[in-house]
Amino acid sequence: MAEHTIGTYLIDQLAAHGVQHVFGVPGDYVLRFYQLLEQRGLPIINTCDEQGAGFAADAYARLRGLGVVCITYGVGGLKLTNAIAQAFAERVPVVVISGAPGLGERRAHPLLHHSVRDATSQLRVFEQITEAAVVLDDPVTAAYEIDRALSAALQAKRPIYIELPRDMLSVPAVPLLAVDPVPPASDPGSLDEAVREAAARLSAAERPVIVAGVELHRFGHQDLVADLARRSNIPVADTMLGKSVIGEHEPFYLGLYQGAMSHDEVRDYVEGSDCVLLLGVWPTDVDLGVFTARLDPSLCIAACDEQVSVGYHGYARVRLADFLIRLCAVAFPPRTLDGVPHPPVPARTPCGPDDRITVTELYRQLGAFLTTDMVVIADPGDAMFAAADLLTGRNEFLAPSYYLSLGYAVPGAVGAQLACPALRPLILVGDGAFQMTGMELSTAARFGLDPIVIVLNNGGYATERPILDGTFNDILPWRYSRLPELLGAGRAVAVDTACQLEAALAAARDRGRGFYLLEIRLSAGDMSPALRRLTAQLAAQTAA
Amino acid sequence: MAEHTIGTYLIDQLAAHGVQHVFGVPGDYVLRFYQLLEQRGLPIINTCDEQGAGFAADAYARLRGLGVVCITYGVGGLKLTNAIAQAFAERVPVVVISGAPGLGERRAHPLLHHSVRDATSQLRVFEQITEAAVVLDDPVTAAYEIDRALSAALQAKRPIYIELPRDMLSVPAVPLLAVDPVPPASDPGSLDEAVREAAARLSAAERPVIVAGVELHRFGHQDLVADLARRSNIPVADTMLGKSVIGEHEPFYLGLYQGAMSHDEVRDYVEGSDCVLLLGVWPTDVDLGVFTARLDPSLCIAACDEQVSVGYHGYARVRLADFLIRLCAVAFPPRTLDGVPHPPVPARTPCGPDDRITVTELYRQLGAFLTTDMVVIADPGDAMFAAADLLTGRNEFLAPSYYLSLGYAVPGAVGAQLACPALRPLILVGDGAFQMTGMELSTAARFGLDPIVIVLNNGGYATERPILDGTFNDILPWRYSRLPELLGAGRAVAVDTACQLEAALAAARDRGRGFYLLEIRLSAGDMSPALRRLTAQLAAQTAA
Repeated sequence: MAEHTIGTYLIDQLAAHGVQHVFGVPGDYVLRFYQLLEQRGLPIINTCDEQGAGFAADAYARLRGLGVVCITYGVGGLKLTNAIAQAFAERVPVVVISGAPGLGERRAHPLLHHSVRDATSQLRVFEQITEAAVVLDDPVTAAYEIDRALSAALQAKRPIYIELPRDMLSVPAVPLLAVDPVPPASDPGSLDEAVREAAARLSAAERPVIVAGVELHRFGHQDLVADLARRSNIPVADTMLGKSVIGEHEPFYLGLYQGAMSHDEVRDYVEGSDCVLLLGVWPTDVDLGVFTARLDPSLCIAACDEQVSVGYHGYARVRLADFLIRLCAVAFPPRTLDGVPHPPVPARTPCGPDDRITVTELYRQLGAFLTTDMVVIADPGDAMFAAADLLTGRNEFLAPSYYLSLGYAVPGAVGAQLACPALRPLILVGDGAFQMTGMELSTAARFGLDPIVIVLNNGGYATERPILDGTFNDILPWRYSRLPELLGAGRAVAVDTACQLEAALAAARDRGRGFYLLEIRLSAGDMSPALRRLTAQLAAQTAA
Repeated sequence: MAEHTIGTYLIDQLAAHGVQHVFGVPGDYVLRFYQLLEQRGLPIINTCDEQGAGFAADAYARLRGLGVVCITYGVGGLKLTNAIAQAFAERVPVVVISGAPGLGERRAHPLLHHSVRDATSQLRVFEQITEAAVVLDDPVTAAYEIDRALSAALQAKRPIYIELPRDMLSVPAVPLLAVDPVPPASDPGSLDEAVREAAARLSAAERPVIVAGVELHRFGHQDLVADLARRSNIPVADTMLGKSVIGEHEPFYLGLYQGAMSHDEVRDYVEGSDCVLLLGVWPTDVDLGVFTARLDPSLCIAACDEQVSVGYHGYARVRLADFLIRLCAVAFPPRTLDGVPHPPVPARTPCGPDDRITVTELYRQLGAFLTTDMVVIADPGDAMFAAADLLTGRNEFLAPSYYLSLGYAVPGAVGAQLACPALRPLILVGDGAFQMTGMELSTAARFGLDPIVIVLNNGGYATERPILDGTFNDILPWRYSRLPELLGAGRAVAVDTACQLEAALAAARDRGRGFYLLEIRLSAGDMSPALRRLTAQLAAQTAA
């Protein structure tokens, strides 16, 4: 084994897990590590602000299984808190590497720039929002701590925090003998019984249904659930957080289930089922239609990462993967998909030259526009909620639809396209969210990326207005389509009519000229049926 | 006493402490509190991103004594972490008010949007970076907790965190009988002896000198130190973090002391003194010239918030205010200011039409441009460090020169101008920092503010380049002067020559048309002498 320093060991472990880019913003405590990263073939993608780097690393991790954001101490690390909290909440394995003052200089001088209360402040913050938080302050244990933290990230699918005092970078590391971490295994007895009971219930059911959730994405079980559906002919609904887990073109695809916010035929099918198999579904407020879902627990089988429940009883230590593999091997009684609803492809109506663009028409055209070489990235707001009715086919669909942090989509697209250069990002973002982080299109331009950016300009926080309106929901009306003049890069167009959108989307197919921004100028008050259903529920919660 | 709810009690206490604006970004957990704030006369200044709201509230607090940022849970609060950490490090009393899920809905449904690990995650984060962190979850204690937290902010000059579950907003509050908190008092014996010893040393010294630091600003002792200097004819140097504590036009003003980064005559005077009185000075790395300051502790008297040290011994429980008041009453032996250096006003050399603009010329012209109705706000980088040589006269000078978070100046200016409408902000910001938060000029435009914005465009992170350079220090070259086209507001001009700068500054005096941005196009590698001195020291630390 080649001799390692703590710095080279850390980098090589990241590379071994498929990391090829690192996101961040430079600062003096981390400059030498940046240099080392580049020397070892991991280029730094420096974003406008650290927040953007955090979201980019998150999207990178959602697509590749691991993402890295590397920043300086305090002023860098603490700008990441929200992005990493979102990664924690939505189970995305992001590695935060923070440069830090050297141990030597800390002893000599307590009032070092970028420090808060004491040398542990940033660590304590990240302990709240990560699966593991370590400081590489001991050469004897540093390599072990790196292994342990990375293993925690990959098994739990959660972010971790690694703090690197700058004078430890070149200290020799002591790797342990290569010991593969033992992944948690299912208990054979629990697994047998859980599969037997689930199979019996599904087989006996008149109208079973599968609801596919987010963990199928995080743990990479998309093919398993498709296989199960194909073998059993049990129809599958997905959830907003699990959107794209199942190909929406599949014959067994039912539609998106979201409680009272679902389309009637999907809701009736799922809630009328006598056996609902929930696979990797989290009961979040948004995914349950702000708690309007009516699922009788006695009729449900729910399988998550490490446990299965059937009716009101639970099986511990049953891994989702094992459960799915075993279910796929069950010989279910023959069924057909006759009578199973399938989401209709919205009818195309020829548009008149003056037909004003609407959210509904926008998403209809986007549904037709999508090709399999795109990844859809949606920001919270109608940009995301309207996508409930967008058939994404085989496309990856990235959206923080549980934690719901605004500002995710534009920097997320930077991470997504670098993670999968074969996929062109289609960004869906509201004007409020765009004003937060939209300038990260600068980063896209700098690194030669070419996302399509759909800005839903509805004059402010349109998701808040139906809940409770005030001038605080207004924002300055930027002329979003002038952005290329400021950046000296990209293309942009303002869209007022349905016909203009058709032309703009046609032009968007032309690649090689950087980002292409479409400013969709919506009428005040226009929103998708999905958002109307959601905000009615949220307003009831707010007034409660 | 009028009947109060928890919401109205909190608002009225803020207003009683001089708060007239609240910064934030709306979100459903805080909408009803926003409505209540506006109903009670505290308008919401909604920024593009929460980070901007945090910096705006910080600058507001630096000028008015208290600032408030109010945001929603998780996605709002956790975007503030860095701004609030800076307020903690630099002792700025900012109140963070976070809306939160109602206690009722938390019991019923654990997976609420904007949640991280559990209902305490955000509280635990803010406990690391605030003086007090409270959750208003009990009607019996809520008013007391508000009083206690506000009192902590005002006495310690540190940020606090108040979490407001949305179903507690309208619950009746139970104010305690009005009990004024007892401020910590000096111990009379310690105070007497400390003043006697300090006075004797100062009187006996051949060449005493005062170094004025940041706490004089935070505790509002600017007049006291000026009074002391005037009565004693002891000359005064200031520090970067304490810049503007002392009027730089005063005859007793010596210059800015910063260890080896000072001008020679200032350094010689301070380090050659036989009695250095450090008033409210923090020994930070930047203020000590990255630890190049050579101050013999045996010759120093150092007074901070709650203690005084003379030589190597300390006096506990001596308050800075009491110490200063008592020193002002001392009859010092007569002295003159003959032979005391005073910073020279940079000579004006007529500029030729093609003289390229330089950092030095920029700051010379800015020194002449400044009028007393301006407040200077500087972002870390050469924008701030070059200001060491900028004579700010009587102007307030706001800069986070200890914690050094980039992105402070533009949103800070929003807070500053709302805090003191009589002061027009002069923003000094580098291009890297501008790409982080410069879009908050949108907020300035929306609320009718008119800062002058000096963007030092030197093609990236010029402060990092002399430390360790790489492509990670490059950024996309925005055309900053095109910003008004995107925002539909403000004016801007690109400046390549010294003469163009003269014309642009003359035009900037014309008010009433929103922000005025001057993009200063510097040559690659041009930097102030101050930054050159600083980065040489930082590079030595990095390589160490």
